[in-house]
Amino acid sequence: MNQDWYKLLPRVRNEQPLVHNITNVVVTSFTANGLLALGASPVMAYAREEVADMARLARAVVLNIGTLDHTVVDAMIIAGKSANQQGVPVIFDPVGVGSTAFRLEMARKILSEVKVSVIRGNAGEIAGLIGKTGMTRGVDALEQEAGNLVETAATCARQYRTIVAMTGKEDILTDGVTHYMVQNGHPMLTKVTGTGCLLSSVLGAFVAVEENHLLAAVSGVASYGVAAELAARKTGEKGPGHFQILFLDQLYRLSEEDLSSLGRIQKL
Amino acid sequence: MNQDWYKLLPRVRNEQPLVHNITNVVVTSFTANGLLALGASPVMAYAREEVADMARLARAVVLNIGTLDHTVVDAMIIAGKSANQQGVPVIFDPVGVGSTAFRLEMARKILSEVKVSVIRGNAGEIAGLIGKTGMTRGVDALEQEAGNLVETAATCARQYRTIVAMTGKEDILTDGVTHYMVQNGHPMLTKVTGTGCLLSSVLGAFVAVEENHLLAAVSGVASYGVAAELAARKTGEKGPGHFQILFLDQLYRLSEEDLSSLGRIQKL
Amino acid sequence: MNQDWYKLLPRVRNEQPLVHNITNVVVTSFTANGLLALGASPVMAYAREEVADMARLARAVVLNIGTLDHTVVDAMIIAGKSANQQGVPVIFDPVGVGSTAFRLEMARKILSEVKVSVIRGNAGEIAGLIGKTGMTRGVDALEQEAGNLVETAATCARQYRTIVAMTGKEDILTDGVTHYMVQNGHPMLTKVTGTGCLLSSVLGAFVAVEENHLLAAVSGVASYGVAAELAARKTGEKGPGHFQILFLDQLYRLSEEDLSSLGRIQKL
Repeated sequence: MNQDWYKLLPRVRNEQPLVHNITNVVVTSFTANGLLALGASPVMAYAREEVADMARLARAVVLNIGTLDHTVVDAMIIAGKSANQQGVPVIFDPVGVGSTAFRLEMARKILSEVKVSVIRGNAGEIAGLIGKTGMTRGVDALEQEAGNLVETAATCARQYRTIVAMTGKEDILTDGVTHYMVQNGHPMLTKVTGTGCLLSSVLGAFVAVEENHLLAAVSGVASYGVAAELAARKTGEKGPGHFQILFLDQLYRLSEEDLSSLGRIQKL
Repeated sequence: MNQDWYKLLPRVRNEQPLVHNITNVVVTSFTANGLLALGASPVMAYAREEVADMARLARAVVLNIGTLDHTVVDAMIIAGKSANQQGVPVIFDPVGVGSTAFRLEMARKILSEVKVSVIRGNAGEIAGLIGKTGMTRGVDALEQEAGNLVETAATCARQYRTIVAMTGKEDILTDGVTHYMVQNGHPMLTKVTGTGCLLSSVLGAFVAVEENHLLAAVSGVASYGVAAELAARKTGEKGPGHFQILFLDQLYRLSEEDLSSLGRIQKL
Repeated sequence: MNQDWYKLLPRVRNEQPLVHNITNVVVTSFTANGLLALGASPVMAYAREEVADMARLARAVVLNIGTLDHTVVDAMIIAGKSANQQGVPVIFDPVGVGSTAFRLEMARKILSEVKVSVIRGNAGEIAGLIGKTGMTRGVDALEQEAGNLVETAATCARQYRTIVAMTGKEDILTDGVTHYMVQNGHPMLTKVTGTGCLLSSVLGAFVAVEENHLLAAVSGVASYGVAAELAARKTGEKGPGHFQILFLDQLYRLSEEDLSSLGRIQKL
């Protein structure tokens, strides 16, 4: 990966891309605050009557099925198709897709009707999308062998013709052919709800400013991981309450120097 | 403005008015926490079957269209009419009204069926309500000339026979005839989601305790701005995560002395 | 109460029970963060098509009517029946049940169709469930005489054949026959939204790991109260913004020693 990866964050801050989120009811506030801290402009809109308009105004659309129902899935498809028509990139977060049959059915429906630029999920969710079984425990979990992870992510990327950002202890980014591993991040992220969902929205901000979506995804994931490491360092012994706050602060304060010195990205 | 303006906050704390919010899914928690910190009693209720009852119990009703759909708009109209029948003041926050045709249509529908005491919005939203075009970028944005701002706010106030609280770098408060400018606040407010929405709900708490709604709106806006300034001072270099927390603390700790020494209100 | 009560928290952390919450839109994020901090695994799912599946995967189901409507009540009943069939304990939080006729009707409907293991509410809510009138002001409020409180809680427990956790200045835990009082907690809890709702979900995590549900409820309520006391001590003069954060930290850091030294439980 060339050095361009840490030039994207300043572009996000400079361009302040409008990111239209149709997301779950748990993470709305944290997602909006995270995007604001990063320097992007969040908007949430759900009504079928307006999501096509909002998606057109946006520079990225993020679809997250964390607390889906039929109504919101309909809105996602309308928004996603509108984005596709306008060339606005779409990020898809298949939260908990392995946990119920309904989620898998709805995720596949969305992916069959909307062309997505990036799918962001944990290993269990990405495996679920390609029909690999594997219990999803809560919305996180399922660790697999490292080699399997790359193969699973790449298969998903090829099947849906998209970038896959499979996040976990290590993060795998792939377009199905070229693969990267990012080794930033911190376990404290698993103690705050919505950190995966916010990352999906952050990827929306990054793909909004960079046409090379694989570069954008790698950069977004690494930048996010570095912010988490710095926040964890400041959190020390305090706990997840403080980590959540310090992480938002860190997204706001993250510098190119932080990224260049702490980013751990490798091509596989 | 006479000195009464900074006597309203103690009355809010003393009377703990119940404020019924029908608001968007992003800001529910922050709104409830902000009202609690201030000393008011928040309640959220959305079901058509109960909003008339809840509005009757409340001392103010706040309607916020940030993530509207037809169902919630119906509930808003039922709650608003119930409030009108009981003499309970209604605050209206036309979030993002310029961004989609659906929002404008729904906002006008609500305003045609419910008599509102205060409309709180940014310049773009207030302009949108009176048919002035102007792109809304996200839910904030659109800065205009100062003179235009007052004229826009006053026109809106006269058209809907209400108080308008147009907030931005400077805040304009007007009943269409008498205008005030408040110069408190801090840019960090734009880095935390829902600060405008919470202000609308705070205005609900202020109009609940003071029949002169223009005075109540001026007082609420100025008190809120002073709290933001004090919180920003404590935040220093930390970032929006800490600001959010310190702002809630400050709403809780704000004193009459803070208000009298820091409030910057002028009659125009 | 034997010393087992403070052995339950380590079991929660060890077993990380999946707690399925169908809760109100105000407290979703705080509830998920609180459960994560405690060591449990939260999931929120609402769609009628999937709640039976999700309830089956969970080790406790929490139903909270804070922002109910017909759709969500239907989902609660489906989830609750699924839980009943699988022997998964159900916690019920009748938020604001005294404030509108609709809430009372829906609460009774849920209780007539779903067998619940624990009902957690304030005095006004528990009184409301057994037909005692008493204005609910906001979602908190209504203090009664101490003797009446125990009688009210026990009557409710017998009527619905459940454990009742009636929380307030003192907390009453009863199965209708055996009663405990817990005197932990802190008034600052009333300045943060969703602390009652989170407690209901925390009770879900405790009943998930302990078949004696009265013991689990006592332990959960006391552990929660001790965490609040420790957080309030660290908050000092700061305010509810910091308290909220410090409380999450404290749920994460709470030790058996904290519980054994600070827990104030008595059999009545």
